[in-house]
Order: sequence, then structure tokens, then C-alpha cells
Amino acid sequence: MQNFTYKNPTEILFGKGMIREIAGRVPKDTGVLFLYGGGSIKKNGVYEQVTAALAGSRVTEFCGIEANPLFETCLKAVETVKKEKIGFILAVGGGSVLDAAKFIAVAACFTGSDPWAILKERGANVKAALPIGTVLTLPATGSESNGNSVISRKTTQEKLHFYSPHVYPRFSVLDPETTFSLPAKQLRNGIVDAFIHVMEQYATFPAHAPLQDRMAESLLQTLIEVAPAVLKKHNDYESRATFMWSATLALNTLIGCGVPQDWSTHMIAHELTAFYGLDHAETLAIVLPGVWQYKLTAKKKKLEQYGQRVWHVKTAKEAMMKTEAFFHSLKMPTRLGDYQISAKEAARKVRERLSERDSVFGEHGDITPDAASKIVASRG
Amino acid sequence: MQNFTYKNPTEILFGKGMIREIAGRVPKDTGVLFLYGGGSIKKNGVYEQVTAALAGSRVTEFCGIEANPLFETCLKAVETVKKEKIGFILAVGGGSVLDAAKFIAVAACFTGSDPWAILKERGANVKAALPIGTVLTLPATGSESNGNSVISRKTTQEKLHFYSPHVYPRFSVLDPETTFSLPAKQLRNGIVDAFIHVMEQYATFPAHAPLQDRMAESLLQTLIEVAPAVLKKHNDYESRATFMWSATLALNTLIGCGVPQDWSTHMIAHELTAFYGLDHAETLAIVLPGVWQYKLTAKKKKLEQYGQRVWHVKTAKEAMMKTEAFFHSLKMPTRLGDYQISAKEAARKVRERLSERDSVFGEHGDITPDAASKIVASRG
Repeated sequence: MQNFTYKNPTEILFGKGMIREIAGRVPKDTGVLFLYGGGSIKKNGVYEQVTAALAGSRVTEFCGIEANPLFETCLKAVETVKKEKIGFILAVGGGSVLDAAKFIAVAACFTGSDPWAILKERGANVKAALPIGTVLTLPATGSESNGNSVISRKTTQEKLHFYSPHVYPRFSVLDPETTFSLPAKQLRNGIVDAFIHVMEQYATFPAHAPLQDRMAESLLQTLIEVAPAVLKKHNDYESRATFMWSATLALNTLIGCGVPQDWSTHMIAHELTAFYGLDHAETLAIVLPGVWQYKLTAKKKKLEQYGQRVWHVKTAKEAMMKTEAFFHSLKMPTRLGDYQISAKEAARKVRERLSERDSVFGEHGDITPDAASKIVASRG
Repeated sequence: MQNFTYKNPTEILFGKGMIREIAGRVPKDTGVLFLYGGGSIKKNGVYEQVTAALAGSRVTEFCGIEANPLFETCLKAVETVKKEKIGFILAVGGGSVLDAAKFIAVAACFTGSDPWAILKERGANVKAALPIGTVLTLPATGSESNGNSVISRKTTQEKLHFYSPHVYPRFSVLDPETTFSLPAKQLRNGIVDAFIHVMEQYATFPAHAPLQDRMAESLLQTLIEVAPAVLKKHNDYESRATFMWSATLALNTLIGCGVPQDWSTHMIAHELTAFYGLDHAETLAIVLPGVWQYKLTAKKKKLEQYGQRVWHVKTAKEAMMKTEAFFHSLKMPTRLGDYQISAKEAARKVRERLSERDSVFGEHGDITPDAASKIVASRG
């Protein structure tokens, strides 16, 4: 087992009716930014529940955070924060709104001249942030209980992430009922996103960490088991509750303690989203099988273990086939061709972009721009 | 799944050499109480590592915290805290030292006339505590990452626990190398203690929580798998690391989120320790099979699931036999007779003590003093 430090101070408020619990947790002595996305929360009752819980607070609303939240939009929110003397951000929505809240919280306290530097330096230059609370309505990213955020820049077609211990939410409400109104596509995306978050921390090489392995496999098995009910039963509380808690534990950084981590699938997939606008989970499902194929020898032992324990098959190849079949069972495509995107062109763009940044990825640090390009080329 | 709140702010510093990380985390502007037990840390190099890391702090040592830490000893430490103007407690040792630190931290801030009230009210009257850091040297209780403490009172032969969100350690160092010098008995005790902590949160009734079930089973499987190496290989870093991390996750309260919990084994076992001075884990191993036998119908489904997934046997009865055999394989007795204690007398004492307090235990609240007495009587 590798040495590690682990600290996750976010308070989870889980279950039906828990939105009301934010009442005692949002400060009354400063302005509150109520941040949300396209307005779906006005159709499913969440907006009303949040507004009721915020009674007595000075609230400024900011809506319009998009999927793959934009740097440009966040900067407008930072202006509002400064103008309205905001001291607390309440993010209500999915990972995009939560990630935006984290960037806004940091940018509002940032003393440098260009806030894009927060992303270019991956958060290393972050010294402070406004406190954040969240109400999660889309299980997927784990952003409700970690210090990660991913932000896109429209003008340059870039998508970068940062991490800071300052942006863990103070609290996150996870009420499974808020997911009842989600469209099938977002549920599918959330399942695949959580599944691949686990894989980034698991499908590497054996590292004397049997507990972490089993906990990762527990998440994979549970996501596979619960997926059909999540997609088919629209008001089934129990399956949504299990999905929601699984997605949080998939990326609250616990299962990654003491083990090697990959993240090359995410890094390459971010580029595909930046260039082509595909959903985050869609690009992950395209890239993961390519990374596994490319790194088959190095990942063989863990993929065999995964296949044997989770799918009851023998070989790494069979485990890979089962995984793609699982994605297809959720109606999630796994090829660029499924979106009429040229793999050759995408491979060229990814190579150029990653070469500019001199990026290398993966648990062995050997996914060079050239390797990433080959992986993308293989996903036509 | 049941509604829950979960918050665990303790920073874990895990791995070899991590004791030095406390240097930046212990305050320099107040007195530090360096709390430890019988002095074993002076033989295994831990004392020197801690002392080096505390360079520059004003340190007062307090040693002599016993196994099953005594209220009477803790009160002496509280006097030292007040006299020396202590503002931070560093507990170095096993669960006993950590539990004592928590009580001392609370008692030093307690404004009531009798600090025993903290235990009688189970911590409900706790409003503040001195900050605590820990260096764990004996994996077992999970005290390094929770808000629980168990304290015994010599004069009245009582053993009571309290919980407070104020006593989660700020940080806990878990260096597996500090366990190399532990005697076999303490290792055996630690494995059984962690195993039964999982069971208290798992062996109840099905509650639509497949992820929590699998995570609990992951811990059980891992403890079973790693136990022989922990007991036989004295300087094997990897098995000690897995054991240490498993014991922490067994009772950092995560696997208990959203599920029914039992704890009747602990409540009854505490009485046996209070009356007869057996080690905590020894009394747990005696009581658990009795609780399972007594509640066999109510627990049948979960015990079957446990048997099938962890031991690959079919029935609850077989799962129970496998569990006792596992304890015996660790040289852990499971009967009062093994200690020349009369089950009849113990049953009478337990009935009297629990009747005085009107206690009922268990996930259905149906382990009355009479039921507890029958359970103890069955363990002769």
C-alpha cells in the first residue's frame, strides 16, 4: 500500500426531505448566491424546497450554468458575487453547477490578474475560497464530496480541471427524490461516469491493497446491479438512493487511498468534449476501452481480477467485452463513429493539443500525446 | 435505505514515516499534552519519533492510561491540563489512550459539577472539547476516526460510552510499522474487535442497502484473509497496513450510513469487562454468537447472505459456525467457561445491572435485561 493522506470534511445530508436541513447551515449574516443551471429545478419542486429553506437569508439567484460549465459564465457570476457582497454559495444541480460553484468560490478570492491561471496551475495557486453548500440533483461526478472541478473555456475550446482542499462543500444534500424527473440520458451518463470514476482508481496494477480493491468492486457490482432499475423505474426510491450514494463514494477519494491511479481516460475524454461537445460520460465510454486495449499488458492482472470477481469471466479480454456490453445495455455508444466523428481527425486534434501542453497520463506516466492519439484513433 | 447524516473530518496520515507529519499540525502557541499508556512506545521507537516531531512545542507528558481507561485516571489528566494550560492533546497508543484523550478533552471544558454525567448522558451534554491529534499504534477500535469513547469507573465497576462530534481527532497518524512490536494477543484482539464492529452495522436485517452490505462484506473478507499473516509475520508491512486501514474503516461510521445497527453485543460485552476484567475483544467474541443464536429468526436473512458471500456456505447456522471457528483459529476463546467464569453468575449480574438502567438494545430494541441475561447464560 502506498502512503496517503485522506481528509474529506463534507457533511452528507442524505434522504428524502433533507433539503430542509440546509436551513440551519447557510449563514444569515452574509449574502448567499443561489446558483443553478437551466431551470429544471423549477419544474420538479427543488427550487421551492430550497427557497423555503433559505428563508431569512439574503439570497441572490444566478442561473444559466451550462453542462460543461464555462469559464466565461463563471466570471459573470464572480461579478455578481462581488457586487452583491456574497459570502456563501449554494449550488443546486448536477456536477456542472457544483463545479462552477467551486470555481466561482475560488475566483472570487483570487488575487492574480487572470483567473484562468487557477486551471492552468491545477489549483496549486489557490489560497482561499468562499464556503460552498450543495443540493445534488444528478448523481454522477462525485463533486458533492470532493475538491475537484472541471471548467471549459469557450473561446479556446479548452477543458481543464483543478483541485483544492478549500472547495470541499461544507455540506451536500443528497435527496434521491430529486432524481425522479431526470431524463434517461442523464441517468445513463451518471451511471457510466460513476463506473469509470471507480475504474480510474482500480484498473491499474496490483498494489497490496485488497480492501481498496474489494470496495471498488463493491461499487462496480452495485452500479451494474442497480442500473436497470435506475433506468426503468422512474419513481423507485431505493434504486435511486443506491445509485446516488454509489456515485458519491465512487469519487469522494476514499477508494483511491493508497493505490495507483490512472485518469488517462478522463484526460483524453476531456479533449473530445472540448472539441466536439459530447457529454462527459459519452467521451469516457469511448476512451476507456481504448486505454485498456492499449495498456492491456500492464493492466492485465487487475482486469482479470475485475472480470473474475465482477463478471465471473476468466480473461481480461472477456472483462473488456463485458464492460462495453454493459455500456451498450444502457444505450451508451462506445465509438466515435456512433456520433459521425472521424477518429482520424479526432486523433490528430488530440495529439496536437496534448503536445502543446507536453502532457503525459496514466499510472505509469506513459500515455504520451502520441499514445493518446493512437487510443483515440482506435475508437472509430 | 434510511436517511442519514455523515461527517467525518479527521485527516488520516497513513504510512511509514508519517509521524513526522504531525510537526506542522500540532499548535506551537499553547501547551500540548502528550498522552500515552504503559510505556511500550518507549521500546519501539514511537516515543522518539513523536518527541522529534513535537520539537518547538511546549509539551507536558502524561503516561499511565490503562487498558479500559479509567475515569479516575482521566480526572488526574484533567488536573494536569488545567495546571499546565494545555490547549491540545496528542494521544499516542491504542484505542484506550485515544478514548481517554477524548474524555479528557471534553472533561477539561465541562462546566457541570460531575464529569461522570458526560458518560451517563452519552455525550448529549457535551458543548466543547480541546482539539485532539492521535498516533495510533494498535489497530482495533476505530477511535482514531470517530467521535466515540468508552470509559470505565473503578469504584463502581461501570463501563460507559459517549459520542460527540467535538471529539473527532483533527488528525490521526496510522503507521503500520508501529504495530510490528505488538504481542500476538493484542493483534488477535484487534482483528476480532474490527470484525465485530462491522457485524454490529451489518448483521441485522435487509434494508435496501446493497452498497453498504458489500462494503461491510469487503471488510469481513479482508480481515479473514489478512489475519494469518498479521499473526504470523511480525514485520510484514503490507498485511499490517491492510489490517490497520480495515480496522479504521470498520468503525469510521461510513458502512453504518443508512442501515439499521445492532450494538447489543457491545453493550452486553461492556458489562462482562466491567465485572470480570476480560479484554474488550474477548467479551465481544463470547457475546456475539449468543446474540446471533438468540436473534436467529430476525437476523436469518443477513446471516445467510454473509455465509454465502463471505464463507461460501448456505445457511445462517453454518455462517455462525464458520465465525466461531474463525475466532478459534486466532486463538480467541468464545465461552465464559474458557475463563473459568460461571455463566450463571455472569447472567445474574448482567440482568441486575441492566435492569437498574432499564436498558434495551439491538436493531429492534428488543434485547431487554432478561434477554441479555439469557444470552450471557448461553455462553457457559
